[in-house]
Amino acid sequence: MTIPERIQSLRQRMAEEGIAAYYIPTNDFHGSEYVGAYFKTREYISGFTGSAGTVIVTREEAGLWTDGRYYIQAEKQLEGSGIQLFRSGQEGVPDTKSYLQSALKEGEILGCDGRLVTMDWLAKMKEKFTLRCDLDLVGDIWEERPKRTAEPIWLLAPCYAGCSREEKLSRLWDWMKSKEYDSFILTSLDDIAWLLNIRGNDIPCNPVAFAYAIFQQDRGTLFCAKKAVSEEVMEALLEANISVEEYDAVEYAVRNIGQGKSIAVDYRVVNAHLCGLIPEGNTVADVVNPTVLWKAVKNDTEMDNERQAHIKDGVAITRLLYWLHQHIEDTPMTEISVMQKLEELRSTDKDYLGASFETIAGYAAHGAIVHYGATPETDLPLKADNFLLLDMGGQYYQGTTDITRTVLLGGDATEEQKKYYTAVLRGNLNLGAAKFKQGTSGVSLDILARGPLWEMGCDYEHGTGHGVGYLLNVHEGPNAIRHRISDAPGGNVPLQPGMLTSNEPGIYLENQYGIRLENLILCVEAEKTEFGQFLEFETLTLVPFDRRAIAPELMSDREKKLLNEYHQRVYEIIAPYLTEDERQWLQEECAPIKTVL
Amino acid sequence: MTIPERIQSLRQRMAEEGIAAYYIPTNDFHGSEYVGAYFKTREYISGFTGSAGTVIVTREEAGLWTDGRYYIQAEKQLEGSGIQLFRSGQEGVPDTKSYLQSALKEGEILGCDGRLVTMDWLAKMKEKFTLRCDLDLVGDIWEERPKRTAEPIWLLAPCYAGCSREEKLSRLWDWMKSKEYDSFILTSLDDIAWLLNIRGNDIPCNPVAFAYAIFQQDRGTLFCAKKAVSEEVMEALLEANISVEEYDAVEYAVRNIGQGKSIAVDYRVVNAHLCGLIPEGNTVADVVNPTVLWKAVKNDTEMDNERQAHIKDGVAITRLLYWLHQHIEDTPMTEISVMQKLEELRSTDKDYLGASFETIAGYAAHGAIVHYGATPETDLPLKADNFLLLDMGGQYYQGTTDITRTVLLGGDATEEQKKYYTAVLRGNLNLGAAKFKQGTSGVSLDILARGPLWEMGCDYEHGTGHGVGYLLNVHEGPNAIRHRISDAPGGNVPLQPGMLTSNEPGIYLENQYGIRLENLILCVEAEKTEFGQFLEFETLTLVPFDRRAIAPELMSDREKKLLNEYHQRVYEIIAPYLTEDERQWLQEECAPIKTVL
Repeated sequence: MTIPERIQSLRQRMAEEGIAAYYIPTNDFHGSEYVGAYFKTREYISGFTGSAGTVIVTREEAGLWTDGRYYIQAEKQLEGSGIQLFRSGQEGVPDTKSYLQSALKEGEILGCDGRLVTMDWLAKMKEKFTLRCDLDLVGDIWEERPKRTAEPIWLLAPCYAGCSREEKLSRLWDWMKSKEYDSFILTSLDDIAWLLNIRGNDIPCNPVAFAYAIFQQDRGTLFCAKKAVSEEVMEALLEANISVEEYDAVEYAVRNIGQGKSIAVDYRVVNAHLCGLIPEGNTVADVVNPTVLWKAVKNDTEMDNERQAHIKDGVAITRLLYWLHQHIEDTPMTEISVMQKLEELRSTDKDYLGASFETIAGYAAHGAIVHYGATPETDLPLKADNFLLLDMGGQYYQGTTDITRTVLLGGDATEEQKKYYTAVLRGNLNLGAAKFKQGTSGVSLDILARGPLWEMGCDYEHGTGHGVGYLLNVHEGPNAIRHRISDAPGGNVPLQPGMLTSNEPGIYLENQYGIRLENLILCVEAEKTEFGQFLEFETLTLVPFDRRAIAPELMSDREKKLLNEYHQRVYEIIAPYLTEDERQWLQEECAPIKTVL
Repeated sequence: MTIPERIQSLRQRMAEEGIAAYYIPTNDFHGSEYVGAYFKTREYISGFTGSAGTVIVTREEAGLWTDGRYYIQAEKQLEGSGIQLFRSGQEGVPDTKSYLQSALKEGEILGCDGRLVTMDWLAKMKEKFTLRCDLDLVGDIWEERPKRTAEPIWLLAPCYAGCSREEKLSRLWDWMKSKEYDSFILTSLDDIAWLLNIRGNDIPCNPVAFAYAIFQQDRGTLFCAKKAVSEEVMEALLEANISVEEYDAVEYAVRNIGQGKSIAVDYRVVNAHLCGLIPEGNTVADVVNPTVLWKAVKNDTEMDNERQAHIKDGVAITRLLYWLHQHIEDTPMTEISVMQKLEELRSTDKDYLGASFETIAGYAAHGAIVHYGATPETDLPLKADNFLLLDMGGQYYQGTTDITRTVLLGGDATEEQKKYYTAVLRGNLNLGAAKFKQGTSGVSLDILARGPLWEMGCDYEHGTGHGVGYLLNVHEGPNAIRHRISDAPGGNVPLQPGMLTSNEPGIYLENQYGIRLENLILCVEAEKTEFGQFLEFETLTLVPFDRRAIAPELMSDREKKLLNEYHQRVYEIIAPYLTEDERQWLQEECAPIKTVL
């Protein structure tokens, strides 16, 4: 079926159910950012493949809401679909709620699948609309819908986890006791994986398993496909007082959770359908999952491992850049072939498990599409005359990586290209070198990265930094480095030693090119003085920046010194793993630029 | 009576009323920051003269809570009082609520004067304590308590206000209609003064009048001492549909506000006693006073006038600095004599109305006491060997000023003094030169000023910037430049063109000296590009920094350029108002320092 035909079929189902508008978010039952194939209802109905977006279909209209990262991509992908693009966050663009308020008449019904929305969303919408949440209408019309996967669950070894599941569970149970919660319902897949030291393979790039978990004060139950649980895994969980039940049994368990109990649930995460099953007569406490913060603060083992992962990844990507520069003139290359070459280079490491997100290889104008994904239809041949933006993440036993480099594969950068590249680089260097007092939130640091662009009247429509998991999701809260203050509970959490965050300023010139430079930075302790405890960042990513695009005259002496120190460190750490040709190339890439200091 | 005797008398009254603990905040009935003599109950009971602090007296203990600005001062002033100092905000120091929770047994009564606390405070305390709010126990024992003043109210002329009271009231009434509020109770003195274009003299340094106001959708009533209202003022108010009633009649008016009405009140501002008088059967809406934001965004007339006020103030203070340097060797000077000289120099301007806060003249170690106020007992003679910190604000018909300069009156700065002075200066220059996108809050900019100190493991225990009123309070919300994100509603408001904010990084070395450098910066529009509207600051303050304490080798070329540009502007604007000797001196002070750029 074409997109318009799919929307037609959906409207027919809506009419049968007496629904005036149908709401299709990007979600699975667990609030995951990336969703498995089974859950791609929004993509199925709209053709838009971005990782974030919401579709609303009414009797006459259809709209897609997505954010600044995807404006350009969505515009292209919606062509001819009859679906209108709503650029979320732009002046004058209504949000989904405002849109629905003007689209729906009093008493008309808004439908959705209650497993794909949160209690918070439901509470907000209930104020204004008559809702039906028991409908999976896209599922009804999707004939060749993929199955929900149930890939094997595996145990994360102690040398990678650094903290036993027993210890993590003790912490949880202590928290529950201190708050007097009888039960705690945890449904975010990365939190479950972190807490139980398990990993899975049910979501592309995110090594998690489809599962729910319910904890009492000294035990818990994991609800997942039993066929995915080996005897070894089962035993390890049982030893930690965790029993295993089938995925779908979670509904029965919630319905029978007891009476007069105090039950902790994060209304911003747990799906509304599941929450709705909690029997009356219990007290439900809306909490911020404590595992979110615990998971974000990496332990010493995780930190040491992440350093190793970044050496492995640094070697692979340095080799990739060498290969690109050596062969751009003699080997035909496209965006997709670069992605394949990267995978080949990474795969030589026995600890490499796969990408942590779909590689972005955006040549020229494609680089200006913030989350561009090359397809055979869009794939561009590479030439030496423009920027290639590469945003790449890997999953290693030693942790998750995420790096962006923007490179010129030969030729001379124009003055404009240098001006922009240097501004982005200055932002990256200044943020990476920040020192700040304990208690500081990422909001206070954002300007260090964004300031050089603001000075020129430029900006980028995305955050400067997101938290990164340990062999888990590449986007992980609560730490972030953003320009806007968050309204969400715990949304402006101070940075703490052990938090791993990205540092990725950029600039995007539509139809020309994009530049983004991303390192992962680990928050560590600096000195403690009479004025307090200070913190700073250790940059883990080890890949050179592109000297061809740097204008040293636009940098301060301090910035030049930071660049030279970084390049020296890259060279010293990465060189021993390279061939002689690669090493010589890297040495040139890392040679110091002149500074007065 | 000595302080211990006063506390003894208070305890006797507490015993008579069956009160276990008595709570004495720093406040008047209007939530004012500075309070008139009548309201200085906290100072009377403790001897602590700082502008912020709370005293709690129990049967056995007495404590004062105050913030980082006042740690050193409070420590000295509490000596021998038997009152314990609680350093608010320091690790391990309980806040007043936690303290009371451990000090009071179940059912024991906490007393306070309900006119001195807000509804918000009351709601928070009611959860934990049994309260009595009808007691002014310090008033009961204070025999020679000053009278509440009722100084004449005067009209702010259109050439100074820039917007008529009719226009301001229309905006208020439109807001009330749009929100369907029948009544709006406004009790903050600066908001009332701004809204009605009136000024008074009931609070030292703040040109406001003791008054309450209640508005209906097309009229209002000002409750104030009628003897303070001339016929001219009365007529002007009546023309704008504002009638005048006696101050105390506000209680009758609130008791009879009607039935079934919707009444808007800011629970963080209006006193709990007054709120408690609203009859049942009305709906009370807790709002953020809209006047706070309206007042903060200066209109074109106010902005132009503020520029003029800062020239007047810049001339007076430049003259003061000249005089200090000329006469430090031949004229005995003390902190207080400098304050007097400043007043003398400012008073030569016919538009000068008085100080906007008590001048801080802190020599050497006194400079490290953030809000030091010299008294005859503490007054130090000045020598040329250490820093003198001068924080000075003026009230002019053309607006309010607030400036801090730290000067060496001769001799050579030590390396350490230069290091710290230069770091503070760099912070001031970098914040003043910020460019940022519309929507940015002060939290995002704070690090520009604080960063150079954090780099050295130093910090200052106060915000970087506070909003400043127009011929009103020198501390005025909601705009601020702070390191911590505020929890208060509207506490992180984005900076807007027209907002006037201070830029005052500092460093304080206990028992040695303090350095603070403060300019007022006006938010103005910068360019609008495809990336959005950008904003920047115009520095209004025009007084040279102290070259003797600057280490140019610690500054970037950009910072040196910013300093030179600022000094050139100071010289060009201020020089025409000086004598030839003063002009020559200023020229030397403003001479450029060498830069590579």
